[in-house]
Amino acid sequence: MRRLVLAAAVSVGLISSAQAVEGMWQPAQLPTIAGMLKQHGLKLDPKSLTDLTAYPMGAIVSLGGCTASFVSPDGLVVTNHHCGYGALQYNSTPQKNLIVDGFLAKNFSEELPGDPNMRVFVTEEIRDVTKEITGKLTDSMSGAERYKAIEQAIKAQVKACESDGYRCDVYTFHGGYSYQLIKQLEIKDVRLVYAPPESIGKFGGDIDNWMWPRHTGDFSYLRAYVSKDGKSATYSKDNVPYKPKHVLKVNPQGVEQGDYVMVVGYPGRTNRYRLSDEVQNSIDWVYPTQIKVYEDTLDIINTAGKADPKVAVKYASMVAGLNNYLKNFGGQLEGLRRADAVQVKRDQEAQLEGWLKKQGGAENQALVADIAKLRQAIADEKAQRDRALALSLVNRASLLGTGVRLVHLAKERPKADLDRDAGYQERDWVRIEGGLKQLERRYDPKVDQQFLAYGLKRYITLPKDQRLPALDAWLGDARTDTQIEQKVVALYAGSRLGDTDERLKWFKADSKAIDASNDSVLKLARAMQPELQKIEDEADARAGEMTKLRPRFMQAMIAWKDSQNLPVYPDANSSLRVTFGNVQGVAPRDGVSYSAFTTAQGIVEKATGKVPFNAPQAELDAIKAKAFDGYASKKLGTLPVDFLADLDITGGNSGSPAMDAEGRLVGLAFDGNWESVSGDWLFNPQLNRAIQVDVRYMLWVMHHLDHADNLLKEMGVPAK
Amino acid sequence: MRRLVLAAAVSVGLISSAQAVEGMWQPAQLPTIAGMLKQHGLKLDPKSLTDLTAYPMGAIVSLGGCTASFVSPDGLVVTNHHCGYGALQYNSTPQKNLIVDGFLAKNFSEELPGDPNMRVFVTEEIRDVTKEITGKLTDSMSGAERYKAIEQAIKAQVKACESDGYRCDVYTFHGGYSYQLIKQLEIKDVRLVYAPPESIGKFGGDIDNWMWPRHTGDFSYLRAYVSKDGKSATYSKDNVPYKPKHVLKVNPQGVEQGDYVMVVGYPGRTNRYRLSDEVQNSIDWVYPTQIKVYEDTLDIINTAGKADPKVAVKYASMVAGLNNYLKNFGGQLEGLRRADAVQVKRDQEAQLEGWLKKQGGAENQALVADIAKLRQAIADEKAQRDRALALSLVNRASLLGTGVRLVHLAKERPKADLDRDAGYQERDWVRIEGGLKQLERRYDPKVDQQFLAYGLKRYITLPKDQRLPALDAWLGDARTDTQIEQKVVALYAGSRLGDTDERLKWFKADSKAIDASNDSVLKLARAMQPELQKIEDEADARAGEMTKLRPRFMQAMIAWKDSQNLPVYPDANSSLRVTFGNVQGVAPRDGVSYSAFTTAQGIVEKATGKVPFNAPQAELDAIKAKAFDGYASKKLGTLPVDFLADLDITGGNSGSPAMDAEGRLVGLAFDGNWESVSGDWLFNPQLNRAIQVDVRYMLWVMHHLDHADNLLKEMGVPAK
Repeated sequence: MRRLVLAAAVSVGLISSAQAVEGMWQPAQLPTIAGMLKQHGLKLDPKSLTDLTAYPMGAIVSLGGCTASFVSPDGLVVTNHHCGYGALQYNSTPQKNLIVDGFLAKNFSEELPGDPNMRVFVTEEIRDVTKEITGKLTDSMSGAERYKAIEQAIKAQVKACESDGYRCDVYTFHGGYSYQLIKQLEIKDVRLVYAPPESIGKFGGDIDNWMWPRHTGDFSYLRAYVSKDGKSATYSKDNVPYKPKHVLKVNPQGVEQGDYVMVVGYPGRTNRYRLSDEVQNSIDWVYPTQIKVYEDTLDIINTAGKADPKVAVKYASMVAGLNNYLKNFGGQLEGLRRADAVQVKRDQEAQLEGWLKKQGGAENQALVADIAKLRQAIADEKAQRDRALALSLVNRASLLGTGVRLVHLAKERPKADLDRDAGYQERDWVRIEGGLKQLERRYDPKVDQQFLAYGLKRYITLPKDQRLPALDAWLGDARTDTQIEQKVVALYAGSRLGDTDERLKWFKADSKAIDASNDSVLKLARAMQPELQKIEDEADARAGEMTKLRPRFMQAMIAWKDSQNLPVYPDANSSLRVTFGNVQGVAPRDGVSYSAFTTAQGIVEKATGKVPFNAPQAELDAIKAKAFDGYASKKLGTLPVDFLADLDITGGNSGSPAMDAEGRLVGLAFDGNWESVSGDWLFNPQLNRAIQVDVRYMLWVMHHLDHADNLLKEMGVPAK
Repeated sequence: MRRLVLAAAVSVGLISSAQAVEGMWQPAQLPTIAGMLKQHGLKLDPKSLTDLTAYPMGAIVSLGGCTASFVSPDGLVVTNHHCGYGALQYNSTPQKNLIVDGFLAKNFSEELPGDPNMRVFVTEEIRDVTKEITGKLTDSMSGAERYKAIEQAIKAQVKACESDGYRCDVYTFHGGYSYQLIKQLEIKDVRLVYAPPESIGKFGGDIDNWMWPRHTGDFSYLRAYVSKDGKSATYSKDNVPYKPKHVLKVNPQGVEQGDYVMVVGYPGRTNRYRLSDEVQNSIDWVYPTQIKVYEDTLDIINTAGKADPKVAVKYASMVAGLNNYLKNFGGQLEGLRRADAVQVKRDQEAQLEGWLKKQGGAENQALVADIAKLRQAIADEKAQRDRALALSLVNRASLLGTGVRLVHLAKERPKADLDRDAGYQERDWVRIEGGLKQLERRYDPKVDQQFLAYGLKRYITLPKDQRLPALDAWLGDARTDTQIEQKVVALYAGSRLGDTDERLKWFKADSKAIDASNDSVLKLARAMQPELQKIEDEADARAGEMTKLRPRFMQAMIAWKDSQNLPVYPDANSSLRVTFGNVQGVAPRDGVSYSAFTTAQGIVEKATGKVPFNAPQAELDAIKAKAFDGYASKKLGTLPVDFLADLDITGGNSGSPAMDAEGRLVGLAFDGNWESVSGDWLFNPQLNRAIQVDVRYMLWVMHHLDHADNLLKEMGVPAK
């Protein structure tokens, strides 16, 4: 790929500065696109962004699903309000609701321990291990052999890398074109330092989610703690603040319209190089089917929740998630259709294959043949979609899913760790045990039974050859809804897995004990597990085949783009990426323009006094009085709240620092606009925008409303 | 008032051209604000706009609820699609749906007769009759006497003015500060000439109603016909096209961003000079209560409509109207709250009274006292609001309402015409008879019974002293919902008024015959009518008092504004008005800007293939091919569709011509933006915008899609 991006640097002159640059770039790629970076306004040497242990990259951390950055030598971490939400939830009681009220520790001793599952991952090393992973692969290997070989090689790399307090993972790029081993310090004592009230931090709530104009103060502060000897440790009173190697400088002046801005973070997943057939399948089946399933699921929960408020509480976060996805899927469908994405992809593939054929030569011919094979593999995968969905819905019932997992774990436990299936190795046990414990907080037997019945009703519509003999045997003659529901009720009546102690007991049991159990769910799980394993093995074999074919497609794609002097970035895979561009608004549709900034006045306009538009009265008064304490933008003549930039981000980027041309903190990315929802498939430079909370709004809220001047001082922000 | 507006001309320099000019100006006022008009860009001599029989005012006509203009010497009239809708409805059958397909007459003989109720009113004379109406009023008169005297004077004026084919009306300005007699030729043979299909004329439908950006081709063409001797006549094959004295010239180049534009039409009603107490009452009670009543009404209709599709058809237009109002009321509430309208009004009143007191003198003292009396009269009126609403809901039941009207009519008929109550004079009989006939198309006995029961349930909650003895006697002991519903069912079982012939029979009957009738509804109506009459008389007395007090408030207001060199326009009252300003977009809320023009591209963006976004395929193809035939705007580089201007319009302005600086047609007003909904109370120059369909879009649709080149030729538009 180096060749490619080197060549790209030559083509920089062709790209207008007003044009957004699609791309979630690997830090190592940046020097090769130095011209583009400079043209857009970067003042730092791009080389300085490649060293992950130097400034500013050394300050950027992962929270596992979110991104954050160190902003003080004492391990103070800034991230989104919605990324620190778990810590607020964990410390809230009906009497003292920190989510609603917000929280501020005036000193270290007032800081509250976060949810024990919270983590801060500090990346310390990235190493290319493509040779180590793929070196022993041969063309004659079957898909299953290939999958196994890769899995083994990855496990070996991880094993060799991991040591006390460190977590290592091998990341796959371009579907297997290259692999990187990433080593991260795993900080386990993460405390809550400060969060504004929900009426600021979640202002606009779900209504404004994915929308612009936005007026959300989506930020909060955590602190990373380690043992006295500087090592990763779970919460202890004796732990001390972690001393990060680097700390982001804050630019209290922020950025203005047109300024260079970059966001660095851990985007989770994109599908930019998926084939047209896969886009088509998503439009025709995946999103519409998921929408139906999620709506049905909400019906089940809402009906049960109306009858019993406790049920509503237990499933509240699932409901929020389902609604969130429903809105997202609607946006995906709308965006993919509006962009005519299938046709765009088809045209691109036709051009690519036309180019390969025109180049000629045996290798290019082989690439064309492999792309055809990839299409076939995609079709094979598609043929499994109904079964995969039905089984995932059956497995979604917590009790049965737990049973299957316990059976599987008992089988893997006696093996050598490297031989254990991924997800069942020693490193996974804490997570599995935690899941078994936490189940009780999100489990209601009646709702769970309905989930299982729902999955089974879908399951029985599968053709005979896609069904599981063990499940069919258990179902017997049950075919009608009522019969299935009766089977499910009987199943739950014969199981004690709803009990946490019982689950934890089986967590430590061996296969012999499980085989001897009379628990109805464990019995069913025991019968099903080998059959599920077989289906998983088949899926692994297909995945193994894919690790051969996708890289071939990417190889062709890279060569083709190379011929046009265009750089290629890999799809997001939760590894550290940089996206750069400029602060700018957007014209989302005919007749409408959105400015790059929202301002404090917009909070007053939206305020209704009711959640989620219940801005604090003190805030409304301050805005009306223009009491901005010097944090206002001179250009705007008022206080900015959130801003748009033509950056390429996705889920996982939440909390990512937005940095100015000199690498200073000017905001936090927290969302994309509605048009960017489908950007995971197809980035549209005219329409896709990232949404950041402006550093000036953050500082003003901290200073004027919440009096968090201790933190401003700690961050080195000059006093007002 | 002349003094005021003369003074205003001096202050013109203070008004920036970017600032919208609030005001629905009477044509006669225009020369006195000539400076403002010129500053905004008018090139005509304002004096030329005062002669209603000269160009261009002579070309503007009323359709009774809508505005239109003559655009050919053969009486061709252009107005909104939704104003010509009745003619499309009247000529549509399930087999041939002109609403869906649109319609084009290629020559006079193909033109279709419109709904017989359609009218074109050509204003021929406006005369101030303030002296004639108020000359005999004395301060010692009671409210009732005053009301009677004014009513008598108005009736006399109308009687003296009206002659065959002409309709005269006295319009009240400033709540009684002045009166004008307006004489209009009433053209009764109005034919359908051309309308685009609904997928253009109503594109966006109710979803886009009151919204921007808009892409509606809201225009259609009618033709006025008169008898061979040029007189008003009902439809006859022998009628000939009316020859208007003046015809609007069309400017096929339209207007561009910033250009002067004015809209001339017949705005119905505004409340700009209502007192803060009245605004408060609207926010606290009127709109919320109406919203509840309308929602309940929709529930009744929708439930009945689901059971019987025929019911749904009968009440379809009521449902459309209720939904339209519900959306409107929501907008009113939102706008009034957002503008803090009550406080704005209170502040204004405090300033006005402060100014009056500061001026001193007996007259100003008397004005202050009269404003206090006005507040008391408003409070008195408010005390009647529950009864007024309950009785209006009882009366909304068509059968009982009809009965009361028949009883009333029979009482008035023997009197001399001038002594008859307003609404029951000879000139009203055709309208009353038409209503009795048309009832059958909008009446379902079961729904009507539910309407009556709904009204009665509200009625029985009134305090004893607000109730009608006759209605109480009829209700007997009925108090529960079931008891009331049983009374209603029995009432309907004993009446034949659901039958059209029966209603028409009673239309001609005298009181003696009605008194002898055994029809249950007529019996109840007979008992109730005198009591309703008494309540109406009390309301008239209060209205009479108001005709004394509101002009006093306006006198104070005008004097105060005069002292600030500000002109005062009267509230809309369905008389001809001019509003002027410039083509410009709007920033409706923080972060959002709307451009002045929407373009053809937006139609493609909105098109879903489904009503109301089912743009014709031919249109979509033409837009994609940029086949704009020279109608595109050079400035925009594409075809404009609708445009915004900072004009002051309201209901009744629909179909009003938008004219350029030289008085040429450049579009048709058809709506206001969402923020302008509450503009009826408080005009906001920053936010309120009128929406016009652009003449270039009209001409392009006519030429390119519908091939209405015969009309383009008739209008003198150069061929493309």
